[in-house]
Amino acid sequence: MVHSLLISCPDQKGIVAKITQFLFEHDANITKLEQHIENNMFFMRVEWNAESVHLSEREFLEAFSMLKESLNAKIVYDRQERKKRVGLFCSKEGHCLADILGRVTIHELPIEIPYVISNHEDLRELVESFKIPFYKIETTTGNFEHEKICLEIIKQNATDIIALARYMKVLSKEFIQELGQKIINVHHSFLPSFIGARPYHDAHDRGVKLIGATSHYVIPALDEGPIIEQRVKRIHHSHDIKKLKLLGRECEKEAFAFGIQKHIENKTIIFENRVIVFE
Amino acid sequence: MVHSLLISCPDQKGIVAKITQFLFEHDANITKLEQHIENNMFFMRVEWNAESVHLSEREFLEAFSMLKESLNAKIVYDRQERKKRVGLFCSKEGHCLADILGRVTIHELPIEIPYVISNHEDLRELVESFKIPFYKIETTTGNFEHEKICLEIIKQNATDIIALARYMKVLSKEFIQELGQKIINVHHSFLPSFIGARPYHDAHDRGVKLIGATSHYVIPALDEGPIIEQRVKRIHHSHDIKKLKLLGRECEKEAFAFGIQKHIENKTIIFENRVIVFE
Amino acid sequence: MVHSLLISCPDQKGIVAKITQFLFEHDANITKLEQHIENNMFFMRVEWNAESVHLSEREFLEAFSMLKESLNAKIVYDRQERKKRVGLFCSKEGHCLADILGRVTIHELPIEIPYVISNHEDLRELVESFKIPFYKIETTTGNFEHEKICLEIIKQNATDIIALARYMKVLSKEFIQELGQKIINVHHSFLPSFIGARPYHDAHDRGVKLIGATSHYVIPALDEGPIIEQRVKRIHHSHDIKKLKLLGRECEKEAFAFGIQKHIENKTIIFENRVIVFE
Amino acid sequence: MVHSLLISCPDQKGIVAKITQFLFEHDANITKLEQHIENNMFFMRVEWNAESVHLSEREFLEAFSMLKESLNAKIVYDRQERKKRVGLFCSKEGHCLADILGRVTIHELPIEIPYVISNHEDLRELVESFKIPFYKIETTTGNFEHEKICLEIIKQNATDIIALARYMKVLSKEFIQELGQKIINVHHSFLPSFIGARPYHDAHDRGVKLIGATSHYVIPALDEGPIIEQRVKRIHHSHDIKKLKLLGRECEKEAFAFGIQKHIENKTIIFENRVIVFE
Repeated sequence: MVHSLLISCPDQKGIVAKITQFLFEHDANITKLEQHIENNMFFMRVEWNAESVHLSEREFLEAFSMLKESLNAKIVYDRQERKKRVGLFCSKEGHCLADILGRVTIHELPIEIPYVISNHEDLRELVESFKIPFYKIETTTGNFEHEKICLEIIKQNATDIIALARYMKVLSKEFIQELGQKIINVHHSFLPSFIGARPYHDAHDRGVKLIGATSHYVIPALDEGPIIEQRVKRIHHSHDIKKLKLLGRECEKEAFAFGIQKHIENKTIIFENRVIVFE
Repeated sequence: MVHSLLISCPDQKGIVAKITQFLFEHDANITKLEQHIENNMFFMRVEWNAESVHLSEREFLEAFSMLKESLNAKIVYDRQERKKRVGLFCSKEGHCLADILGRVTIHELPIEIPYVISNHEDLRELVESFKIPFYKIETTTGNFEHEKICLEIIKQNATDIIALARYMKVLSKEFIQELGQKIINVHHSFLPSFIGARPYHDAHDRGVKLIGATSHYVIPALDEGPIIEQRVKRIHHSHDIKKLKLLGRECEKEAFAFGIQKHIENKTIIFENRVIVFE
Repeated sequence: MVHSLLISCPDQKGIVAKITQFLFEHDANITKLEQHIENNMFFMRVEWNAESVHLSEREFLEAFSMLKESLNAKIVYDRQERKKRVGLFCSKEGHCLADILGRVTIHELPIEIPYVISNHEDLRELVESFKIPFYKIETTTGNFEHEKICLEIIKQNATDIIALARYMKVLSKEFIQELGQKIINVHHSFLPSFIGARPYHDAHDRGVKLIGATSHYVIPALDEGPIIEQRVKRIHHSHDIKKLKLLGRECEKEAFAFGIQKHIENKTIIFENRVIVFE
Repeated sequence: MVHSLLISCPDQKGIVAKITQFLFEHDANITKLEQHIENNMFFMRVEWNAESVHLSEREFLEAFSMLKESLNAKIVYDRQERKKRVGLFCSKEGHCLADILGRVTIHELPIEIPYVISNHEDLRELVESFKIPFYKIETTTGNFEHEKICLEIIKQNATDIIALARYMKVLSKEFIQELGQKIINVHHSFLPSFIGARPYHDAHDRGVKLIGATSHYVIPALDEGPIIEQRVKRIHHSHDIKKLKLLGRECEKEAFAFGIQKHIENKTIIFENRVIVFE
């Protein structure tokens, strides 16, 4: 088990020295450290053995607060004390959903899935076979009334993040802002190419030789959220749209699972419209 | 729906002309044709719209038999009239199994799974949640008595092929020969590197920068069967054995699913110790 | 040595039979055959041993002309009797140029380079060290007068195709049409993403995790020509624009060399705005 | 311009704090820092702006010596004050050689090539066209007398490292030890698969679906040196040995250039038989 700390602050000389000195004084046995500098901003992720530090979460945060303030830093501190709770949203296509459920079942992805919300009935059986509650929340037309019900479920279940497993319904600006940078989506194209609803048709028409998919954090501007991961597959001129979709789904599954995993490992920092993804 | 024909025969001039002429005379609307020549042998796969030919399976085979004999050809003729029945074997690790079950559930891989056989109990719950019979067949030590029970299940269920989803028990020569070239395995290394039981440890010790997995047909010589597919992932020096295994499992899942899919699409021909895999 | 034939015609039953029957009657020993059907059009590439057919180029075309007309086919027939002559254009960046010159020198890419045309002096020394004539043709502002000089060089040198090795000057519609589908370009982005002059800056701003390059045939609409090949490389958040450019150049070199090679092997057919690229 | 420091020492708490504190006290503006821990050993690479530190090379080493000793560390300190001098060895195949010469010419790879040594005449013209001295050193049979001449050239030219661009002659244990870990080789297979002289034949016989190449440091045990980089390409059943070789050469070029680049950027540490390759 490891504790990890993400730090973002304005760059200046001596930051690493100060932070690692602090950790050294509190006996932290650092096992991993990565830093990145960009546009005069400093970013770092540092990880240490849970056993080497004897402070509680509150004690650690208190002890660190002075340094944090002096650096004008934002931090995310994680102790892996419980599995993150990921609320899944889906519609009709089940490939990303089934992939995540499979990974969780065999303990490959250490998350809990407290529920699945969908605007369709199609995937109920799949979800319930994993003994996970399935809520069909019909979307209302012309407004976002249905999001209120979703928000209630999200809150009642102490959700850490939402992951949209091919949920084909636009979210309201309000919903997105309420949840903060805690919604991960998978977009069925290699962004920024082929934005929109029919990327595989568009990719076929344009005769591209590679197709891909993108996982990203959701922001109000559709299809423009900061990218976590992208995957591509080679396509052949003999591949028709159906085959493109199949290959695209492989990309979607890979990019989506990777995005969730990096997030719950406390390895992502959003800066401007980019994501720093630590190893 | 398509009908497809795989043909292997000694090479000579005019084979394509003869076969396509035959299909033309029987109204077949060819939608795909690939051929390959190697070591004076000729291999071809041809596919046509099911609707364009009005012969039954038996009539087609009868009509084709004269040409087949004159070419001294082996053929595999498939009409996609029913889903292939794939018997899955597993042990304790569920990643390939869960991946296949997920793909079948969402209709991505058009097969039926009549049963899963395992020498351990670990994956019973996963399998039964998909409403598929799970048979624990304890392996007997020093002999292969347990294979008799497996063979019975295989036969009673009209199994088309066996797919070993990380089944960690060597099969007897007799079992393999009885089933013919109908067993697909996934080997947890990039063959022929790191043959054996601990490929990820070996890969880590050797300091390789890519790891992979291999799906192959099973022959009596362990780890030497003809290769259908191989996949690799990049590794970083910071990756420990646990991380190597995780990445390796991604390769295993991909190579395994691809291998099964190509087989059931009637797109593989084994020649010597190689597999011709049509597009 | 092989002869090859590319055929495009409206689809109908029996085309493969007719063509292969024709080749059989003329003793052609077919070594490779690929076909593709799309939108009711039929495309095929067939290749046979040069030694097996005893017709001259003219005799072959005459013999084939009746079948060609009856199929309403367009064909490209190639006998590999001489190396294709590729005129290279460049500006200041030499990576694609140096890569091609290297491949030619070690006999990896079987082409002749009769000349290199540039609108700058920067790469003269490199080109002349390979004993290839280098013409600096200054581009005129506001019109395309300089293209006349280029066209003269192109014609005097019996050029088969033009390959734009990072030539940073737009070509006129007239120039493109005069040369037909005989100009190959490499675009420094993964089209259709990041069209324009600064793709690596744009890619960095958007925070993509993969960058790429595209080789394509040139048509009057800038950056929209039919794509022959695309390559990508993974990028890391620590990569700055300079590093992105370096990785991008690797993609450009690979896609460009691949594009030229497939063209001179008579393996490409343009259909609508896509390229069929045979194996 | 950056200065960089590679550090290897037994792991203990507080190392990063001590080193970064030292750099902070000497005004170093750290722009990059990576560390890695393995088997109780600590490895780090840190990079800072050359302008931010006002010590000469000697002053820096003196100032750092106390900390170095207290950590029991090995270090490599590099100031990028001059281009590294890379002596190239080759035989008959020129693809890796031409690739490196091209990269150097267009200033993509910041090295100097003081000479090329070969045991054959084949590549003299290519090398001399780049105005680089070419020495043909005939290899003597049954002993390693010719290596003495090579060593003299190496020393007279103040060579930093040797890079074997497909040099097909085994080096003596003495030669290797004399030069230390300063010889980079490219092996024409995806090690540890297909060790030996005919990897592409072996790969074809085994029917693998991916082939690759490996760059590594040379140690006396042939083909077992620590791996810097590996690259693979997909192969198709229609690819014959000639095509495999062409694809393999692409892998060789990529792995070789990458290996040289990482070495001269002071980004590699050899530990046991593995290479830590910093980003």
